[in-house]
Amino acid sequence: ELLLGQIVDTNSTRISQALAEVGIDCYFQTRVGDNVDRITTVLTQALFRSDAVITCGGLGPTQDDVTRDAIADVMGVEMSLDEGIARDVERKFTARGRVMAANNMNQAMVPKGASPIPAVNGIAPGLICPVGEKVIYAAPGVPHELDEILSTGIIPDLLLRIGIETTISSRVIRTWGLSESRLSELLNPLFRELERNEDNVTMAFLASGVEGIKIRLTAKSTSQYDASLALDRYQEKVFSVVGEFVFGIDDVNMEAAVGQELFKRNLTLGVAESLTGGLVASRIVSVAGASNWFNGGLVSYASDVKFKVLSVDKGPVVSESAALQMASGVRELLGADVGLAFTGVAGPSASEGQKPGTVWIGIDGGPLGVESKLLRLPGDRERIRQYATISGLDILRRFLLVR
Amino acid sequence: ELLLGQIVDTNSTRISQALAEVGIDCYFQTRVGDNVDRITTVLTQALFRSDAVITCGGLGPTQDDVTRDAIADVMGVEMSLDEGIARDVERKFTARGRVMAANNMNQAMVPKGASPIPAVNGIAPGLICPVGEKVIYAAPGVPHELDEILSTGIIPDLLLRIGIETTISSRVIRTWGLSESRLSELLNPLFRELERNEDNVTMAFLASGVEGIKIRLTAKSTSQYDASLALDRYQEKVFSVVGEFVFGIDDVNMEAAVGQELFKRNLTLGVAESLTGGLVASRIVSVAGASNWFNGGLVSYASDVKFKVLSVDKGPVVSESAALQMASGVRELLGADVGLAFTGVAGPSASEGQKPGTVWIGIDGGPLGVESKLLRLPGDRERIRQYATISGLDILRRFLLVR
Repeated sequence: ELLLGQIVDTNSTRISQALAEVGIDCYFQTRVGDNVDRITTVLTQALFRSDAVITCGGLGPTQDDVTRDAIADVMGVEMSLDEGIARDVERKFTARGRVMAANNMNQAMVPKGASPIPAVNGIAPGLICPVGEKVIYAAPGVPHELDEILSTGIIPDLLLRIGIETTISSRVIRTWGLSESRLSELLNPLFRELERNEDNVTMAFLASGVEGIKIRLTAKSTSQYDASLALDRYQEKVFSVVGEFVFGIDDVNMEAAVGQELFKRNLTLGVAESLTGGLVASRIVSVAGASNWFNGGLVSYASDVKFKVLSVDKGPVVSESAALQMASGVRELLGADVGLAFTGVAGPSASEGQKPGTVWIGIDGGPLGVESKLLRLPGDRERIRQYATISGLDILRRFLLVR
Repeated sequence: ELLLGQIVDTNSTRISQALAEVGIDCYFQTRVGDNVDRITTVLTQALFRSDAVITCGGLGPTQDDVTRDAIADVMGVEMSLDEGIARDVERKFTARGRVMAANNMNQAMVPKGASPIPAVNGIAPGLICPVGEKVIYAAPGVPHELDEILSTGIIPDLLLRIGIETTISSRVIRTWGLSESRLSELLNPLFRELERNEDNVTMAFLASGVEGIKIRLTAKSTSQYDASLALDRYQEKVFSVVGEFVFGIDDVNMEAAVGQELFKRNLTLGVAESLTGGLVASRIVSVAGASNWFNGGLVSYASDVKFKVLSVDKGPVVSESAALQMASGVRELLGADVGLAFTGVAGPSASEGQKPGTVWIGIDGGPLGVESKLLRLPGDRERIRQYATISGLDILRRFLLVR
């Protein structure tokens, strides 16, 4: 499917990331079809130019799954039945209450001299196949199975081979509102400190578009506990410089962060959307437990809906007063504690004499007060809508923080 | 960035697709960093195993852009300045009113014996570099520039080399409501007809998840006109078998198809969303000109909002009557001609004793009548929401077709 362009290859991205995290250079990546001769050619060429080769896919039970055979060719050994794998495969079928087709025993046939990397999630194990001083690793192609085999088998074995016995832990600090260059400027002293000291902690930026910029701290240590302590220490240092711009750690995205602040304060939310057209509501609804704090939203796309349903005064709708009236109108309509409103010009053409990217955010918190903010966003229609969504949620988050 | 896992490689997918469309087999794909020696190694190995090699990226003006040098190494020739490219690069900078940095002239240095493929969009041209009987093509890495060089230079040159002078045209027929196996069964006679005859038309299915299943017809012919006639002929044959399930051609997605039907009838739409939480509205708003027929939507996530704002009777909200009352309520609230409502269980747990995937669609068209439909959708929470969205829009499309 890869060579026909039917699916995009994300597995090699996963492998690249896993290697980059532990500082192992990946120089070449090759895709090849399910053909023993061609795979053998590629493996031979790859082993010639590199110390270690990771293969991905072709470990299943069907005739197309020929990676094991190609590796045996390159190793110059026969295939043989691994009793341990055979028992494990049988056990997995029994545990799942499924009848095992005979060809599943193919998965227990491995090149002589290869050691299995046990798979908890999948059926087929990974393999470590030494070839002289070098090594070929075989991992399954199903993404979550690949992740498992990489982290439990391949990366640890690679680190062992290059003489590092290490635990790797990382933490993602999510920021919004600073450019990558500004972030890098502010954190430059910390970068220098990391280079100087012996803590084995590294810091990297991951620009993540409408999800903001992530700061990833990675700690290598001999124990999980030490790695975790080091991460805590540096997370605090990052917070002391740019804490104001941090909205979440690891999996906490902007809508989840907003939800946490609302839930803590026992508040409910209603949103009124014009240019975002339902994007804000649909992101919020994907947060687990959103029903505890989200009443709903109104997509007031036609101006008439703003006037009639949200009681916005007739007149320009890309304005501070329209944004605040929308917020107040939706708060009342949906019986929510807080109303959040989005109105603006997504483009491609101007509207009411305002350029595309002009967006007003309005918040009405009743007794908590009101707030409005003007945004000037870059990009095309889709990008403006996406940026307006996350910017507006961040403005609400900051509004809640001081209440 | 690819080898560090920072971005996903979609260029090789584009190349694969372009080759698959004209029936040229792609056996190997390799990624390598910006290093002349390593690129030279990879190109040498690639030329050994294949008749033609396409490179992508590394044609810019900076020190990192070394693809041209590596190709010259493999060809065993010197680099020389191509006057035509030099003039073209200068002209492009002048036309854009930009000052040209001196290093941009690097882009006019090409291996002796290479011919340029002119770039209309980008700065750097592609290159056709003959190596004995074989050939290396160089294309830029910016996706839309790659697409251009592929379609105007590389694919035509490849076809010429294998002795085909052909125009390739294709057409995508979008369907919803049939499984791939059922579609393939119904169209089997047509597949056989295509194999038998001399029309040089091929048909393929592209399963596109929540966008339905696409049928792609591809015609090879000596003229664009003949290719287009052949496509018309076979499109009609496809329609005669599965026309009922076709909602759009080429770029017309489901929301655009619904918009066309509403616009033709001079009708406006309002949507009420529970489990879809704004997905329907946000898809609709992305259609160009949606403001002509879309009034807006209500995300009635909390049950109370359904009761109070949409006048739904208190009681179970995952029901036919709730769906119809939501449709009627939103129609009235937003002053729309047609109301479309979504209510159901997205999961992961059951609700009101109904399993995840249970979804009611309600339509209220006032004088046009009402309709309701029960869906049983598979998958996880996100998938159920996506499938509900497109299924509901298709139900509305069919409702409009007979009115």
